[in-house]
Amino acid sequence: MTYCCGVLVRDGLVLIADTRTNAGLDNISTFRKLHIFEEPGHHVLGLATAGNLSVSQSVVSLLREGVEDHEAGERHQLRDCRTMFQAAQLVGTAIRQVHKVNGELMEQSGISFEVSFLLGGQILGDCLRLYMVYSAGNFIECTPDTPFLQIGEHKYGKPVLDRAVTYEMEISDALKSSLISMDSTMRSNLGVGLPIDVMVVSPDTLRSELLYRVEPGEPYFHDLRERWSAALRSAHASIPRPPYLKDVRTRRLTEV
Amino acid sequence: MTYCCGVLVRDGLVLIADTRTNAGLDNISTFRKLHIFEEPGHHVLGLATAGNLSVSQSVVSLLREGVEDHEAGERHQLRDCRTMFQAAQLVGTAIRQVHKVNGELMEQSGISFEVSFLLGGQILGDCLRLYMVYSAGNFIECTPDTPFLQIGEHKYGKPVLDRAVTYEMEISDALKSSLISMDSTMRSNLGVGLPIDVMVVSPDTLRSELLYRVEPGEPYFHDLRERWSAALRSAHASIPRPPYLKDVRTRRLTEV
Repeated sequence: MTYCCGVLVRDGLVLIADTRTNAGLDNISTFRKLHIFEEPGHHVLGLATAGNLSVSQSVVSLLREGVEDHEAGERHQLRDCRTMFQAAQLVGTAIRQVHKVNGELMEQSGISFEVSFLLGGQILGDCLRLYMVYSAGNFIECTPDTPFLQIGEHKYGKPVLDRAVTYEMEISDALKSSLISMDSTMRSNLGVGLPIDVMVVSPDTLRSELLYRVEPGEPYFHDLRERWSAALRSAHASIPRPPYLKDVRTRRLTEV
Repeated sequence: MTYCCGVLVRDGLVLIADTRTNAGLDNISTFRKLHIFEEPGHHVLGLATAGNLSVSQSVVSLLREGVEDHEAGERHQLRDCRTMFQAAQLVGTAIRQVHKVNGELMEQSGISFEVSFLLGGQILGDCLRLYMVYSAGNFIECTPDTPFLQIGEHKYGKPVLDRAVTYEMEISDALKSSLISMDSTMRSNLGVGLPIDVMVVSPDTLRSELLYRVEPGEPYFHDLRERWSAALRSAHASIPRPPYLKDVRTRRLTEV
């Protein structure tokens, strides 16, 4: 499994991705799923991947080497895109090219052609944007109403994002929320695991503000996990018990 | 969708189930999914259902009217079972009988024969037990190591159970945890909704301690939702921000 999350707030963009891959429970490896495409001053893009690893790696390679445009007889790389919309389109085109080559036989072999991407960043002349691209190459863009997108094992880590993330929050709070969301996912699904790759981009800087790998045992993340557990336990304890049972038990005592 | 959760602690059993059903997003209804089989002093059983409503209702009806045992020429109801294991077996038999009648044509019509059950309670002479029964009629029993089982839309509400529920907790805390788990699920999946049916059974009483329906606007549950949200927000705020970014920003200021 995989969990990747992108948060786009006024103050900037966070992309985080775990690194665990598995082919069955007995074949677990570590692969980077957060890929960076950066030429400071011109563009800074992060591409987080989920789904079949052979497909996502092929897509990333095509985006680096160039996606063939047969009509024009040209190859297009992400660096050639002039807007984030064009970049998302190019990711879609790359997915469809991989599907054309591998899709049919994969599906005949019972392997589903499933892949998804978070593409976030900024290109000179455009704004900081975040997209989620699906297996068919179609995509949606993140907007301030719900300032985050997730791919992979998204459910365990969604409640905390639903409650905590707003477009007006500061970027370091957005980063904190995404790490808590990752922690919740890692606790409930063994297929998601450390290390975690993190990218932060501030608007209009056209360079990555932070590229960081959270390794196992890293003190801040370890502390965050402990504190979040303790805070949840005390939040739980602070809520009064349901009155339903007390009524019944009291009534029974009275009856006796 | 559906969310049902059973918590079995030393102090007793909680079963809760939402009541929302949907055939597509444009066809939403309210159906009871927590069914009670009770003869005080002899047995008290709760059966929570998820999956295809036509299948789960047929299974419940068979369990009430009697599941045909062709070899013995008899019909068996839940009340005839002498142990909880036999009761879980009977639920499995009922599922297979419904599959025999409806399974093939349902699958030909592209409707998957998917159903699952939580069966919890006590029968005179046996202990308080909790089982999860799958579509094929096979089942697992809940044990103190992980004292809860879930069916339906289980992921959103699992992190809170993973952290909060222990076998030694009191029954009213177990009930509170299951309500918080239901709240997390309802916030993230519109297919799960109020009212919520609740059953509580204390060990060796052989009667339901509580049968209760949480209706929309019910003050305690409304308050629990507000308090849990506020507690999560303050838990979030209490965790220090990641030092990663601060380092970068400080370094930049220093460079300037």
